[in-house]
Amino acid sequence: MSEGAEGLAGFGFELGLLKRVRRSGWWHVGVKDPESVAEHTMRTAQLAALIAVEEGADPARAAFLALWHDSQETRTGDLPHTATPYMTKPDPRRITADQTQGLPGRSRDMVREAVDEYETGVSIEARCAKDADKVEMLLQAIEYRDAGVARTGGWVDSARKDLHTETGRRVAEAAVQISPLSWRDR
Amino acid sequence: MSEGAEGLAGFGFELGLLKRVRRSGWWHVGVKDPESVAEHTMRTAQLAALIAVEEGADPARAAFLALWHDSQETRTGDLPHTATPYMTKPDPRRITADQTQGLPGRSRDMVREAVDEYETGVSIEARCAKDADKVEMLLQAIEYRDAGVARTGGWVDSARKDLHTETGRRVAEAAVQISPLSWRDR
Amino acid sequence: MSEGAEGLAGFGFELGLLKRVRRSGWWHVGVKDPESVAEHTMRTAQLAALIAVEEGADPARAAFLALWHDSQETRTGDLPHTATPYMTKPDPRRITADQTQGLPGRSRDMVREAVDEYETGVSIEARCAKDADKVEMLLQAIEYRDAGVARTGGWVDSARKDLHTETGRRVAEAAVQISPLSWRDR
Amino acid sequence: MSEGAEGLAGFGFELGLLKRVRRSGWWHVGVKDPESVAEHTMRTAQLAALIAVEEGADPARAAFLALWHDSQETRTGDLPHTATPYMTKPDPRRITADQTQGLPGRSRDMVREAVDEYETGVSIEARCAKDADKVEMLLQAIEYRDAGVARTGGWVDSARKDLHTETGRRVAEAAVQISPLSWRDR
Amino acid sequence: MSEGAEGLAGFGFELGLLKRVRRSGWWHVGVKDPESVAEHTMRTAQLAALIAVEEGADPARAAFLALWHDSQETRTGDLPHTATPYMTKPDPRRITADQTQGLPGRSRDMVREAVDEYETGVSIEARCAKDADKVEMLLQAIEYRDAGVARTGGWVDSARKDLHTETGRRVAEAAVQISPLSWRDR
Amino acid sequence: MSEGAEGLAGFGFELGLLKRVRRSGWWHVGVKDPESVAEHTMRTAQLAALIAVEEGADPARAAFLALWHDSQETRTGDLPHTATPYMTKPDPRRITADQTQGLPGRSRDMVREAVDEYETGVSIEARCAKDADKVEMLLQAIEYRDAGVARTGGWVDSARKDLHTETGRRVAEAAVQISPLSWRDR
Repeated sequence: MSEGAEGLAGFGFELGLLKRVRRSGWWHVGVKDPESVAEHTMRTAQLAALIAVEEGADPARAAFLALWHDSQETRTGDLPHTATPYMTKPDPRRITADQTQGLPGRSRDMVREAVDEYETGVSIEARCAKDADKVEMLLQAIEYRDAGVARTGGWVDSARKDLHTETGRRVAEAAVQISPLSWRDR
Repeated sequence: MSEGAEGLAGFGFELGLLKRVRRSGWWHVGVKDPESVAEHTMRTAQLAALIAVEEGADPARAAFLALWHDSQETRTGDLPHTATPYMTKPDPRRITADQTQGLPGRSRDMVREAVDEYETGVSIEARCAKDADKVEMLLQAIEYRDAGVARTGGWVDSARKDLHTETGRRVAEAAVQISPLSWRDR
Repeated sequence: MSEGAEGLAGFGFELGLLKRVRRSGWWHVGVKDPESVAEHTMRTAQLAALIAVEEGADPARAAFLALWHDSQETRTGDLPHTATPYMTKPDPRRITADQTQGLPGRSRDMVREAVDEYETGVSIEARCAKDADKVEMLLQAIEYRDAGVARTGGWVDSARKDLHTETGRRVAEAAVQISPLSWRDR
Repeated sequence: MSEGAEGLAGFGFELGLLKRVRRSGWWHVGVKDPESVAEHTMRTAQLAALIAVEEGADPARAAFLALWHDSQETRTGDLPHTATPYMTKPDPRRITADQTQGLPGRSRDMVREAVDEYETGVSIEARCAKDADKVEMLLQAIEYRDAGVARTGGWVDSARKDLHTETGRRVAEAAVQISPLSWRDR
Repeated sequence: MSEGAEGLAGFGFELGLLKRVRRSGWWHVGVKDPESVAEHTMRTAQLAALIAVEEGADPARAAFLALWHDSQETRTGDLPHTATPYMTKPDPRRITADQTQGLPGRSRDMVREAVDEYETGVSIEARCAKDADKVEMLLQAIEYRDAGVARTGGWVDSARKDLHTETGRRVAEAAVQISPLSWRDR
Repeated sequence: MSEGAEGLAGFGFELGLLKRVRRSGWWHVGVKDPESVAEHTMRTAQLAALIAVEEGADPARAAFLALWHDSQETRTGDLPHTATPYMTKPDPRRITADQTQGLPGRSRDMVREAVDEYETGVSIEARCAKDADKVEMLLQAIEYRDAGVARTGGWVDSARKDLHTETGRRVAEAAVQISPLSWRDR
């Protein structure tokens, strides 16, 4: 499996790009050095698990889908919404296919199936992961607002109206009302 | 569950700290603005899944354990190795217990069990997650070396000698030999 | 012209994004916080003038074309080369048309004509601006190399083989041989 | 011209410093990592062209003057206003003379004439470039205000009262009234 | 003394870590890239001198104690308050003993005595240095508030109620009322 | 003393600028985000004490002089060496006089005397502080070299040939030979 090991190591280096690629939407509201895709991904996966367990779904699976949901951005970067009218959206499954072609079979199938399930968006776990993606953005918008950024309202609103689970909606509702420092006061 | 929703949102904000807390060891070798704990965590979880599926273990579970393995650092920061002689290591289970006490029951149990399984370190998935933690550090050390940092050797060595799975060892071996840009050349 | 003034101010704010959008290719070689599109654009415009005046072309016009050559990236970000297989390249003229539609007529025509001339790439000034775009990247690659980044060779090579003016080629040849600090030694 | 090529490459490296030198005034209001001189220069040149075309002046020439207006700061840095009582202001023409002495004749004359025309400040293009310098600072002040910085008022006021073209004044007036995100709403 | 010189140089490199270690509390309120321990230390030492001279104490001694008050954080990092319940506070004297063991005798004694006097906290100079530590945090909290950070109130309050000198109290009182830019207006 | 308290608080805010002003020379060698003046100042003061105690001078006084040696840079920024031919060097005593004019008498005299003694440069403590300024730069140059920066040689050389105490020279000699991580290996 030495070729397989090289494939895995090379894929590990490729995933490292997510630690450097910035989430581009925040540049629009004036954040100079916004969060990386990796930072967004970690909390999305954690939130996916929390939402899923409350919804009676499989939390490890929901977290797992979230873990790969933006992994194609090593090749395209994080495309802002304003790019939509000017390009066809890249197909995540196709990028994933290319990214994983040097992997051993089990690894390759595992990643491809996760991306496929997330993009298809039918399973309850996929829906929890998608809600987590929105809730994560909502929390970050509130954190930037509390760091001084004035025009995060559009991000908060778009996150709130796009949620499909009861838990996702309730967490979003709570997030806009409590202090981001509430956990310290307890 | 509105109290539960507040607990979940508050925990979400607490986890946000991992996007800002820096991995302290890299300051020692001269990296001014090193990766965040969240960035390390995302790739650790991805690597845990890859290692686990190759080892015949449950990849979603291994990734899930990795996802929470440093989540206590919201409260303590990332303690460098040089701190070891001067303090008792904080008990991760105790911090997790405090972090999750405002969560709804299912969420609380889920996080606590994941931290407990990782810390106990007996299950094959826990061992894959622990290897992923080391391999992630190894990849990052190589990435910093390629960005100019001279004294990453100690980090590379310590990662390599602490691996417990065959896949972890092989990926580490491959990583020190290939180019971090090998994925672009294909 | 108060509507025109609002259009100009709004366009000014949109161009401000170029001060925050990062040049994405450098993330691939491990630069965490690379130059902005605006930083690249300024030196490209300066180099375009220098190349043009040596080539007997109109330096102000060449600089002017360079000034708008990446201005569409406010809407798309800086797409890395690795994205090419997965999307149709956005049409710069179409984005420019949208960006300038709220401008007074003379401003609108001015920007559109500059983008059109650059993209058509036939005039000598457009060719000088395009060479400047490459030489700027070459200088930056050397500057990153001297700051420790190991794998800039691919960027240096691609810049050098894509030059169309005699001056561009000679400057590139000189750049790889002198010290970036040569100006201080004089 | 191989000596000329070295001179041009060396000058290109010197201009690269403008990508790193920070605009020092923003440190006073608490911005830790403010814009570079290059970032300011790019938008100043773009605004100079827009103001000039509306004023019936030569837009490429106005942009060209703006492109070199702070290029002397490679040697002095960006001197804050608070330094004024303690030093004689360095002579931009003298610095430019030194910076360009290794350039081929046409390049040397081109840069020196641009700096001279800007500093003399008599031509309509020079006045458009100078207004663009102020309007750029005004837009940046508003962008920092919207990112949370409280005390940008002095910068906004000083920019507004120092404008000499009708277009400059109208754009400034519009800028303080519209949202920096107005271009996205269209 | 060549061994002594190596000890001094090595200690100098260790102290360099304080230029990279971030003050962790600010991460809690959302500051992504907060001040370093070194930055905090410089102003603490300056304030200690100012407070001491007004209190009739020895200003050079008070500044000197402040200069070493966080120097142990090279080994532990800056532990946030939220870590308190989970660990025994490291003993600064013990860390200092280890840090200084390779130093020539006079240097060793000098640093150890300074840390001991500060930690004992009985001398008037130690009390001035401790007040300076709080006032410095207060000034920084106000500076972050003016840069947009919303939730600095807890830091301001905790600083104000923990002051032991009359001068410390009066400076704190003044700081919350004046503008951080008052020095420019004069 | 309420006016005095306002003066002290305002001076404290002014000194805060040193936490943001960057040391400009490092931009020349390609460091994008170099150390602040405050970071340099802290280690200079610590080194001044160490050098002084070995030289038989008063360590607290030497550290105290170092603490104010660049405090005038709140008003001028850090002027790079390349600026020297183009301006008269600002008079530190005159800036200090202005900075301290709103302070209570004892504070005012204290700061002015420290700056005067340092600038006069006759006392043994002033000479130790001046050597510390050079040794600090030397250590930082080595730290940047180990972080990948290629062209720090000129900085190392200029520091080494400008030292006036035996201890300063020996520490500099040792610094270029040992590893910056030697303190961790013990």
